Amino acid sequence: MAGLVRLSSRIRSLPHAGGAAISSLPRASSSHLLLRYQQLQIPSSFSSPSTPLQLVPSIAQKSTFSSSARANCPRKMTEQSKELRKYLQQSHDKIFESNRKWAEEQRAKNPEFFEKLSAGQSPDYLWIGCSDSRIPAEAITGLGPGEMFIHRNIANLVCNLDLNVMSVVNYAVRHLKVKHIVVCGHYGCGGVKAAMAPQDLGLLNPWLRNIRDVYRLHEKELDALEGDSRYDRLVELNVVEQCRNIIKTAAVQQSYEANEFPIVHGWVFGLNDGLLKDLKVDHEAILHDVQKIYNLTK
Amino acid sequence: MAGLVRLSSRIRSLPHAGGAAISSLPRASSSHLLLRYQQLQIPSSFSSPSTPLQLVPSIAQKSTFSSSARANCPRKMTEQSKELRKYLQQSHDKIFESNRKWAEEQRAKNPEFFEKLSAGQSPDYLWIGCSDSRIPAEAITGLGPGEMFIHRNIANLVCNLDLNVMSVVNYAVRHLKVKHIVVCGHYGCGGVKAAMAPQDLGLLNPWLRNIRDVYRLHEKELDALEGDSRYDRLVELNVVEQCRNIIKTAAVQQSYEANEFPIVHGWVFGLNDGLLKDLKVDHEAILHDVQKIYNLTK
Repeated sequence: MAGLVRLSSRIRSLPHAGGAAISSLPRASSSHLLLRYQQLQIPSSFSSPSTPLQLVPSIAQKSTFSSSARANCPRKMTEQSKELRKYLQQSHDKIFESNRKWAEEQRAKNPEFFEKLSAGQSPDYLWIGCSDSRIPAEAITGLGPGEMFIHRNIANLVCNLDLNVMSVVNYAVRHLKVKHIVVCGHYGCGGVKAAMAPQDLGLLNPWLRNIRDVYRLHEKELDALEGDSRYDRLVELNVVEQCRNIIKTAAVQQSYEANEFPIVHGWVFGLNDGLLKDLKVDHEAILHDVQKIYNLTK
Repeated sequence: MAGLVRLSSRIRSLPHAGGAAISSLPRASSSHLLLRYQQLQIPSSFSSPSTPLQLVPSIAQKSTFSSSARANCPRKMTEQSKELRKYLQQSHDKIFESNRKWAEEQRAKNPEFFEKLSAGQSPDYLWIGCSDSRIPAEAITGLGPGEMFIHRNIANLVCNLDLNVMSVVNYAVRHLKVKHIVVCGHYGCGGVKAAMAPQDLGLLNPWLRNIRDVYRLHEKELDALEGDSRYDRLVELNVVEQCRNIIKTAAVQQSYEANEFPIVHGWVFGLNDGLLKDLKVDHEAILHDVQKIYNLTK
């Protein structure tokens, strides 16, 4: 490699900037092999030995780029800074290059593509999935531009006090009149894993609390399982509970009463095989069940 | 067509299920031509004449599938229901078909693809974009699985009280150590357009209020513009203000102080040409500016 290492090694080696240690969340390991464009190379001075899924260093451990380190060793740091800036510029610019190619390809395939795209959207599906970078919703479902309204957050949660996701559901159902609402989780979800660890996760605590509450609701079933089985099942149960949260909304109940749609689905994506698993959430049964308390159609 | 019409016509013809009329938000028109899979056909009894960008009917207008209509005309409605259910089943099942094909294709191209995918994520980018179905973030940037952590909401907003997006930013910066944070808006944004209309939008009011607040901050500049120029400029200014909101966070300020990243970028996607426009948000200048009041690195 003669003084050069791949960026991905450096990504893993760069320490945490500060704040709460989130050591239970899985980290990057070999996914760099998947990166189609990251062929940029950086000096080995950026790298240090790293372990896949390594723990996040504590706030006490200084970054190679920390300001105090720069002050102690200005010349070396300046060179590192220059290299970093160069990488940042390149990894910024390559997106615009790819984007131009994409636009040209679309136009070559269909000269009217962008004219149609500008005219409006009429998606059949609302997708509520995880922010995880490994689950490109459109690609794995085979859906193209205009077909799926998308919300992605950490661990695909649907909370009644969350104006963000509630606005999405409201707009998708009442205005776009989507036919399907899909909650899609995935095995190996870092958010779910973090929620299973009894530790303080700082700002993430209140968000992940929702998953801990799912555990509480299914404590008996989950306690009877161990290791990955328990983890996988919590991923599934979390999806089912989020489906239930969607069915509790006035928008969904009223639309379903009037139109017989949208139908709410719970799926899980498998990172190890790329397949979607249908949890066969029974929309009608859940609706019937929740309407004992949450009937908002009257 | 012999009694058959395309689903897309029906989508536009189905009335609003109830709730606040959101007549200012643009609706579907000809985007069905983009839909790669929607070749399913449904009976013409589902369709009625519709106008592109038509207004949403009021709650008083009954759906063809409303329960009262079904009670008055049980036989006809039952047939319609059957057809609807058939369509819903087909449009559900085709996703799983596409998904199986996608997984096979990935494995054919690279037998180790899913093994690598399971190992972890190490994205360089955090994308905060609009939920609009016409902006597939990965496709337009040319990035693949593992490269970009993604949050999408209505009008790509970053609000300090929004635990959803704040958890995403916190996790992406402190844990994944992303190098770039991109806020990407788009011209023709329905959320921005709705926010410009002086009307009650029900549950969406508090969410879209954030855009109205952006207007207030730039009132003089925007008032001097008219029509689409004003609309386009508000889309851009909204992106810039959301970048500013990200730079105000402790996670970003502290990481930038220690590591010289992430860099925050503001881009706008053009639906009419498929190109990303870089608004050339000056991260350093905004940081310097906000730290007069919001310096969280001390």
